[in-house]
Amino acid sequence: MTDQMQHITLTSRPSGAPTADNFALETAPIPTPGAGEVLVRVHYMSLDPYMRGRMDDAKSYAAPVPIGGTMEGGGVGEVIASTADGFAVGDMVLGMFGWTTHAVANPSTLRKLDPQIAPVTTALGVLGMPGFTGWHGLMEYGRPKEGETLVVAAATGPVGSMVGQLAKALGLRTVGIAGGAEKCALATDTFGFDACIDHRAHDTARSLRAAIKDAAPTGVDIYFENVGGKVLEAVMPLMNPHGRIPICGMISWYNAGGLGAGADTALSAPALWRPILVNFLSVNGFIISNHWDRFPAFLTEVGPKVQSGEIKVVEDIAQGLENAPKAFMGLLEGKNVGKQIVKLMA
Amino acid sequence: MTDQMQHITLTSRPSGAPTADNFALETAPIPTPGAGEVLVRVHYMSLDPYMRGRMDDAKSYAAPVPIGGTMEGGGVGEVIASTADGFAVGDMVLGMFGWTTHAVANPSTLRKLDPQIAPVTTALGVLGMPGFTGWHGLMEYGRPKEGETLVVAAATGPVGSMVGQLAKALGLRTVGIAGGAEKCALATDTFGFDACIDHRAHDTARSLRAAIKDAAPTGVDIYFENVGGKVLEAVMPLMNPHGRIPICGMISWYNAGGLGAGADTALSAPALWRPILVNFLSVNGFIISNHWDRFPAFLTEVGPKVQSGEIKVVEDIAQGLENAPKAFMGLLEGKNVGKQIVKLMA
Repeated sequence: MTDQMQHITLTSRPSGAPTADNFALETAPIPTPGAGEVLVRVHYMSLDPYMRGRMDDAKSYAAPVPIGGTMEGGGVGEVIASTADGFAVGDMVLGMFGWTTHAVANPSTLRKLDPQIAPVTTALGVLGMPGFTGWHGLMEYGRPKEGETLVVAAATGPVGSMVGQLAKALGLRTVGIAGGAEKCALATDTFGFDACIDHRAHDTARSLRAAIKDAAPTGVDIYFENVGGKVLEAVMPLMNPHGRIPICGMISWYNAGGLGAGADTALSAPALWRPILVNFLSVNGFIISNHWDRFPAFLTEVGPKVQSGEIKVVEDIAQGLENAPKAFMGLLEGKNVGKQIVKLMA
Repeated sequence: MTDQMQHITLTSRPSGAPTADNFALETAPIPTPGAGEVLVRVHYMSLDPYMRGRMDDAKSYAAPVPIGGTMEGGGVGEVIASTADGFAVGDMVLGMFGWTTHAVANPSTLRKLDPQIAPVTTALGVLGMPGFTGWHGLMEYGRPKEGETLVVAAATGPVGSMVGQLAKALGLRTVGIAGGAEKCALATDTFGFDACIDHRAHDTARSLRAAIKDAAPTGVDIYFENVGGKVLEAVMPLMNPHGRIPICGMISWYNAGGLGAGADTALSAPALWRPILVNFLSVNGFIISNHWDRFPAFLTEVGPKVQSGEIKVVEDIAQGLENAPKAFMGLLEGKNVGKQIVKLMA
């Protein structure tokens, strides 16, 4: 049985929120690496909102996971066999292994990690794809200026907390939005947001808008968009002239059945489009995988800030591959606190 | 009676499309210019879609016209009295005189015109605010590249025709949208669009979309947005990755009661927002009055093309101030062919 691995497959496509029935834990023989490949035993697996999109069969920037296919995702693991130049048994590597305990990989798709510089889990969060997303979106499309006001939701997540901390250090007023008092305390006390609003305390976009307005008395210059829905509806009328909206996600709509009717929002298309015109807004969608050429610059700038503790790291670590679906469903409901990771090795 | 002038005032705010009742033709004494001012007799007056927005009492980039106030707008006129340095009786000038036969103006708000270079009416259209809007929006936010495809509505209007002609000269495939067969013939035969679609032949956004898709087989890289509504709904799913959407107007929504319910479109907010993310779109609203610093560059580049006939000029000239409201209502319904102007002098 030592030659067996476990992985989680997509058995059916969700309509709305995913359920346990959409996933299956399966066992398979550990694959053998071919010439020039490595075999990795995964230690930590990342869970991210974008994975919800891959479960749908809708046109998007990436192909959907096929039915019966292993769920996609990034992970950190240890090389346990290698015929590849430059990769030795024991090396720690980052790669897109999927929801699995073992994977064969082409070394060109791997990044070697130095555990002396930062804990390897940071390669999945603050120094990985989510942190890079926050940095690139803020700096490239947000164009922050001292004295401005920034709003970001999912403020304690790995994207939102990066955006808030970078913006604060640049002299912006930072207003976070998060679900629940515990997360709001984390946003202000640990991540240094000037204010945090608990969206669960506001049933309507109108009520949420009034709270944001109080926290952003001079209006909103940058709305870093990662949720859509009620928060977008609340913020849009508060945007200042020449405001910027980088869009990296819209998690509140991932569960709404794709392009569907937008049933969870009263926001009309004109109410969304007209402020872009009358306030001269700049709205840019992006996916970070188009921008890996900027990753070295990100690591150079942000890596030392993580090492020094200037940028804080908060992780939420679930135990065991079998618990990944539950942790993922919790992530989509905002139950995690900090970057959601699954630990696969005891 | 030679000391009397005429002007048109806003008597009430329209709900939906303006009607004749919203306007009044009034008579008043011709004002006397103060020290350093000029008195202008208006020869030609411009009618533009943005004026519909000024009739509403909604938050926008400009203050509304007050009830009882003269309708705003640009015009070309002749200086008939002057105590201002550099302005002599007989000079032709461009200014924001409003819907009026005479106006006193501060010379800092005027631009002197040389009728030898181009007919003075071009200062209201192809070489004025609309042409400048098309040029700036296309070059700054559209970022056209040879071989790409551009879609623009109101294709025979002064903005759309400028956008189409500039893009065509840069090697793009240009697809115009216009109302009626006559305008479509003008778009292709005079303005050189590769294709033009009559939106009146398509009751639904879906049908219009199919026609655009046929005319833009490789998708849409630039959608120059000046109408909103059905055209936007049709185009959005056709946008290519990394597409650009400059927004200078949304005339189809101006008559929908401002921020109201968007009753003329089935487009939901997620259906508008999600393509921005998944296709990495860049959406920029702008009002040209923020960009006058670029006007000299525009005149330098486009002026010679108008003189040479490379950029075509089509004007629709109504006769007499008293007919301005009717011409304006016609403009909002797309009844004009080419740049709508009102001639005030026999």
